[in-house]
Amino acid sequence: MDTSFQTEDQIDQEQAAALQQQLRYITAHSPYYKRVFNEQGIDITAIQSIADLQKLPFTSKEDLNRNYQEMLCIESGQIADTVVTSGTLGEPIPFHLSEKDLERLALNEYLSLSIAGVTAADKVQLSATMDKLFMAGLAYYMGLRKIGAGIIRVGPGAPELQWNTIKRFAPTVFIGVPSFIIKLLDYAEAHNINPAETSVKRIICIGEAIRNEDFTYNNLGKGIVSRWPVLLHSTYASTEMSTAFTECTAGQGGHQLTDLIITEFVDEHDAPVAEGEVGELVITTLGVESMPLVRFKTGDLCRFYTSRCACGRHTKRVGPIVGRKKQMIKFKGTTLYPPALSEILNEISCIRSYYTEVYHNDLGLDVIRVHVACRTEHEENDKIIKDHFKAKIRVTPEVLYESFEQIEKTRNSLNFRKPVDFLDNRK
Amino acid sequence: MDTSFQTEDQIDQEQAAALQQQLRYITAHSPYYKRVFNEQGIDITAIQSIADLQKLPFTSKEDLNRNYQEMLCIESGQIADTVVTSGTLGEPIPFHLSEKDLERLALNEYLSLSIAGVTAADKVQLSATMDKLFMAGLAYYMGLRKIGAGIIRVGPGAPELQWNTIKRFAPTVFIGVPSFIIKLLDYAEAHNINPAETSVKRIICIGEAIRNEDFTYNNLGKGIVSRWPVLLHSTYASTEMSTAFTECTAGQGGHQLTDLIITEFVDEHDAPVAEGEVGELVITTLGVESMPLVRFKTGDLCRFYTSRCACGRHTKRVGPIVGRKKQMIKFKGTTLYPPALSEILNEISCIRSYYTEVYHNDLGLDVIRVHVACRTEHEENDKIIKDHFKAKIRVTPEVLYESFEQIEKTRNSLNFRKPVDFLDNRK
Repeated sequence: MDTSFQTEDQIDQEQAAALQQQLRYITAHSPYYKRVFNEQGIDITAIQSIADLQKLPFTSKEDLNRNYQEMLCIESGQIADTVVTSGTLGEPIPFHLSEKDLERLALNEYLSLSIAGVTAADKVQLSATMDKLFMAGLAYYMGLRKIGAGIIRVGPGAPELQWNTIKRFAPTVFIGVPSFIIKLLDYAEAHNINPAETSVKRIICIGEAIRNEDFTYNNLGKGIVSRWPVLLHSTYASTEMSTAFTECTAGQGGHQLTDLIITEFVDEHDAPVAEGEVGELVITTLGVESMPLVRFKTGDLCRFYTSRCACGRHTKRVGPIVGRKKQMIKFKGTTLYPPALSEILNEISCIRSYYTEVYHNDLGLDVIRVHVACRTEHEENDKIIKDHFKAKIRVTPEVLYESFEQIEKTRNSLNFRKPVDFLDNRK
Repeated sequence: MDTSFQTEDQIDQEQAAALQQQLRYITAHSPYYKRVFNEQGIDITAIQSIADLQKLPFTSKEDLNRNYQEMLCIESGQIADTVVTSGTLGEPIPFHLSEKDLERLALNEYLSLSIAGVTAADKVQLSATMDKLFMAGLAYYMGLRKIGAGIIRVGPGAPELQWNTIKRFAPTVFIGVPSFIIKLLDYAEAHNINPAETSVKRIICIGEAIRNEDFTYNNLGKGIVSRWPVLLHSTYASTEMSTAFTECTAGQGGHQLTDLIITEFVDEHDAPVAEGEVGELVITTLGVESMPLVRFKTGDLCRFYTSRCACGRHTKRVGPIVGRKKQMIKFKGTTLYPPALSEILNEISCIRSYYTEVYHNDLGLDVIRVHVACRTEHEENDKIIKDHFKAKIRVTPEVLYESFEQIEKTRNSLNFRKPVDFLDNRK
């Protein structure tokens, strides 16, 4: 089932064939694309290769937000599962999945988790929820079933329960959010648990980046491996793609699953960028029945790599996400993305919790304000924080000191699905 | 796949054949039963019919607690999913499931939810969690997939999210805990939501009883149907059985799934009780690969019925659970079970939350103490509560008044899995 060891030519040919099939399906079933292709006089039989994709229009997040109901290709009775996007930018929107889409999702995680080295011999502790209309937890579960691994469905949070379960059922793999792993390690330290003595050998990190752009560990990644001798695997995925990009042990980007998705990387003028250059990821889903997307602009900025990976796979790899296109900040002459701010703040040990905010000043310029709760009140904190920003990005933001409770309240109040660490208040 | 419309004779024959097959499997793979059958000189080839089951020893909860590791019939590598029992009585113990056991679990809920009238045309809002090592949520999900219904995985709690999701995705069926449905209805009342105007037409009630012994609605059941014009279905299930007994629309007991389980009902001397008499449910699982149980005494007291059901099924039905054998209380000459106490307390409108406690006095006699938090402090509350007990069971327990927070703390402190409403402090 794993086609990633085929030659580039074979992969290209198969992708082109799958694309044609997907386009035929879409023009037969998607009211939205039928209308758009008609309006623009597009003949899908002219799309013979991956390069021909460029003859098709992009689908923007705004198109999706406005037209998701018209994009649904199946009848209400064919809906097997309903998820909603996390709504990090804009309103959470529903994605309905057919039985076939669920099977594709299981295949996606079968392949992804296999790339991360998970086998039938593993026992996997799942600390992502399978509830709350999330796609991820269910996908992991189905993928692990397909692999034949043992699954321990603990769900999120509850450090004591997580460690008790690790001790009791001896999982070899842990799937969780990196910043939660840090909390787990803090709990272990406070309760005399030695993580190194547990059965866990591998952590699949979800939802947050653990690497810098050069593939070295960022502060989150370093914070984990320095305290727990495990293999870390980064993943990148979204509900819209219903596909994951997962790192093999080489840790040089997430491998594209070429059966499930086509990727393009474009600059601000929609022209393709070269390998190793930062571009916006544009995806076309393959094999999706319910809500297929054509040339969907994800808004995520990253680099791609085609050099042969040490693991022997010939598939394209996607580097760490540099930032979200819409969240680009021009601050005192510097171009910045929120992940860079988080990276700096995660490094400052006196900070217990934080979120950053960007707004327009009277001149319409971007201003960054950082809200922090410190571990202890200390006059020096302010100097430490500002010096650190100066050293890293040569400019210092406004810093506001608030209580831990206030910060957590704001982080959790805006959206029931994920705590927030960046607020974009620009008009 | 649904064999419940076969004649009684056919069902008996098939159960006998399935029993023989299960016993052959057990004596080949279960270290525990191999040892016990050997010690007692039991020859399983002598077990030819369901009546012959009586030649086999019972398995008690204590046997299970002490020997669950020796009861495991599969290798560690064959474990696909791990659940733990809720531990309402005694320690929570792990039940491991093989891939085949998960398929049996899916079949169980396919049949159960079909009996409750769920079809491929339904959309089902699942308010039970699929996390936390629970068996139920996963079972519902897999059963609904097999039925071909649409599933909306909301998970437990969060009334606002539940109503928003009902409004947005228009489920026809809701699966949840009855006392939580009451909370949902209170939320609706406080927020001007009219439940009758929603898409929900049917509620599958899990984890708590909604009927009295004569099949009329108890206060919980009445509290729901009087405020929400839906069909209610009671279910009875446990991790140990990995099987559910679910009501059809006739509401005259949960239908036994004869392919998955054999039931017996015995008195305190282990002799079979007659139809309509209260007895302890004893089960023998069929088709279980990982942790099959033979003549397991569930501790649950109930009645069985074999009269033809209005739905046309010929299968045995299990009436509402009267109580747990171990929790029998002899109070001032009256025999009582905790559900009867809950039923009384649920009826008293000035009570906001409660739990009951039973302990031994100096003479070694059972004493009942009720801990309650009232909605408002009012002198009359005490008289109302005591008069109500006198009217219902002719005796009055001790009543202790505590704050809502204190009561909730005790209800939730003992066990991470389910809030408690009965404490047995007898020595």
